[in-house]
Amino acid sequence: MKPAGYLFATAEAAIKKPGRKDIAVIVSELPATMAGTFTTNLVKAAPVRNCMKKIRSGEGRAVVVNSGNANACTGRQGEKDAEETAALVSGQLKIKSSLTYPCSTGVIGTPMPMERIRPAMPALVKNIGKSSFDDVAKAIMTTDTFPKSASRRLKVNGKYGTISGICKGAGMIAPNMATMLCFIITDIAVEKKALQAALSEAVGKSFNRITIDGDTSTNDTALIMANGALGNKPLTLKSAEFSAFRKALDELTYELSRLIVKDGEGATKLVEVFVMNAKNEADAAKAALAIANSSLVKTAVYGNDANWGRIMAAAGYSKAKFDPEKADVWFNKVKVVNKGIANNKDREATEEMKKKELRITVDLHAGKASAKVLTCDLTEDYIRINAEYRT
Amino acid sequence: MKPAGYLFATAEAAIKKPGRKDIAVIVSELPATMAGTFTTNLVKAAPVRNCMKKIRSGEGRAVVVNSGNANACTGRQGEKDAEETAALVSGQLKIKSSLTYPCSTGVIGTPMPMERIRPAMPALVKNIGKSSFDDVAKAIMTTDTFPKSASRRLKVNGKYGTISGICKGAGMIAPNMATMLCFIITDIAVEKKALQAALSEAVGKSFNRITIDGDTSTNDTALIMANGALGNKPLTLKSAEFSAFRKALDELTYELSRLIVKDGEGATKLVEVFVMNAKNEADAAKAALAIANSSLVKTAVYGNDANWGRIMAAAGYSKAKFDPEKADVWFNKVKVVNKGIANNKDREATEEMKKKELRITVDLHAGKASAKVLTCDLTEDYIRINAEYRT
Repeated sequence: MKPAGYLFATAEAAIKKPGRKDIAVIVSELPATMAGTFTTNLVKAAPVRNCMKKIRSGEGRAVVVNSGNANACTGRQGEKDAEETAALVSGQLKIKSSLTYPCSTGVIGTPMPMERIRPAMPALVKNIGKSSFDDVAKAIMTTDTFPKSASRRLKVNGKYGTISGICKGAGMIAPNMATMLCFIITDIAVEKKALQAALSEAVGKSFNRITIDGDTSTNDTALIMANGALGNKPLTLKSAEFSAFRKALDELTYELSRLIVKDGEGATKLVEVFVMNAKNEADAAKAALAIANSSLVKTAVYGNDANWGRIMAAAGYSKAKFDPEKADVWFNKVKVVNKGIANNKDREATEEMKKKELRITVDLHAGKASAKVLTCDLTEDYIRINAEYRT
Repeated sequence: MKPAGYLFATAEAAIKKPGRKDIAVIVSELPATMAGTFTTNLVKAAPVRNCMKKIRSGEGRAVVVNSGNANACTGRQGEKDAEETAALVSGQLKIKSSLTYPCSTGVIGTPMPMERIRPAMPALVKNIGKSSFDDVAKAIMTTDTFPKSASRRLKVNGKYGTISGICKGAGMIAPNMATMLCFIITDIAVEKKALQAALSEAVGKSFNRITIDGDTSTNDTALIMANGALGNKPLTLKSAEFSAFRKALDELTYELSRLIVKDGEGATKLVEVFVMNAKNEADAAKAALAIANSSLVKTAVYGNDANWGRIMAAAGYSKAKFDPEKADVWFNKVKVVNKGIANNKDREATEEMKKKELRITVDLHAGKASAKVLTCDLTEDYIRINAEYRT
């Protein structure tokens, strides 16, 4: 079940190489409210800067996205190329180009091959309605091994509306092949401010709490469109049903972010790091991210080594405040550290390490805040994929 | 040439396994001034806490060090074991135990096998004078593939004095096998405050500016002893010859830190990241460390891929302030980025990538400060070493 009032198209522009659909559009048949969150990297790709300007209006009709080239570190020409791509789509759709959002993922520093993108545009627009949202999910893949999508249904004003999302990841980002991109569409009407608030909160708890290699891309973008095709009275921050919408969006983005981690470059295991009883949420997140980003923790997980010393050490350098002599650590339900020292459960813990999904819990005994971060293990395949990507 | 007035011993205590010398002492024949720097990790090993207390006196006579067990996350018992080890050495040497500094490196979370350390002590003390400083360098190795030592000579009061140092590293640290340890001895007399100032400054520019995997150990320790066997008037912060001492110590620690990076786990290349014209030194260091710690940069270096986009992206998320459209990047002397965009020198750059040593220079054009960080590439061997260490 997909949200009403959206159409899709994909086409081949041979941006990096021929042989696959590498450009796509998402079009809303109705004017839509729109919200977005973007990379915090100081080096922002041209399409990211383009979207950041346009999103201020809170309105949109179309997204045009390509894989194979990030259009990052491409200077003024890159900015022109991003806007030209949006304008080409807008012209054919007869909408204002300020309502079309360009997104890119791929190699950094290579000029966009506009000589191949321009001629692909008529076919792309002609294809509108012939592709599915899942086809778009495929077109935006880079080193992803499977397309990623998720949906939620919820009742608003007595009618069932739908929220659907697609995303791509692979390296949490690999700035080269690049980026987390996420596009969410819904037929539920949501007022601009409420839509941005819901998206920002959902992203904060999902895409901002996953890490594959700790690198933050130049192109990370999450966009949501709400076209109101359901006919409900637009949800506001005060609507009774807004909290249900928020919850559904939280679930959706969490499911998508989990898929990204599952498909982390070279990953063999999904790891959830849960830090509890921290002094505050910032401390909980710091500790969880330090553990999730530690190459030593990730290689130990890969090697089925219940090496909790690496977890204690990572928490210790995370800058989170706690007393190491009070800390407890679990692998799944096996408590391996009790008050900062060995609980002598290495054999049981090693059995847990062999499972495909591992939950590392750290109780800091320093307060009441908690944070959860998803990551994956670090393997020889990650090295191979990233050492050999361009060659 | 080694500093006068120091004696050394090594012995086998079979701490992790039998078959190698794994415990060592360094003894000064004269009372020495002493200074130290220690890990900033909140989780500090028992011997680190022991040393941190003792170093306040600025005095010392002996260092006792073992490999095979870090004595970290071992609770109160670990503290007792560290002090007992120091006391056993002190008792036999007939010095106060407050003058003996215990250091450990090895597995975290396993109690010290005191039942094997105690009986090894008489042999250790009996061996004093039979081993060399280089033998100590061998005894403290863990996954290091070669012992690391360096020396400098300098003229003080018309006589030649010597500074010698040894260290171990491997994983910049692998909290499991653990740690950067560095011991420096000199026969030049240096007053306490001056010795600590010189060491802190030298460590700040050397051991604190190298990274292999970004993890900071529970056991990192650098100690320096100055016994004055040269007979010079103790150097103070104001001595004319103190700046020469500082310079020699800076060079010595830089040489040692370079050896650690060269011997990084699985490394095939030495990489120097130099960030120049940053707004201030903190920004320069942030950018250099972000680049040096990026798994994507390190795998690209391993794969001979002149992938400068990953460098721009890492600088961009480092929190250093700069205008990406002004930044320049070089691989050795080949300029690959000019004002934030491609300089079209990929072929020449690829040739540079094939060399065993690579210098990545980033000009931020944001000020006048600079920072240099040493690192290595990230390879399949790093994964193998760390995934299989305990099993």
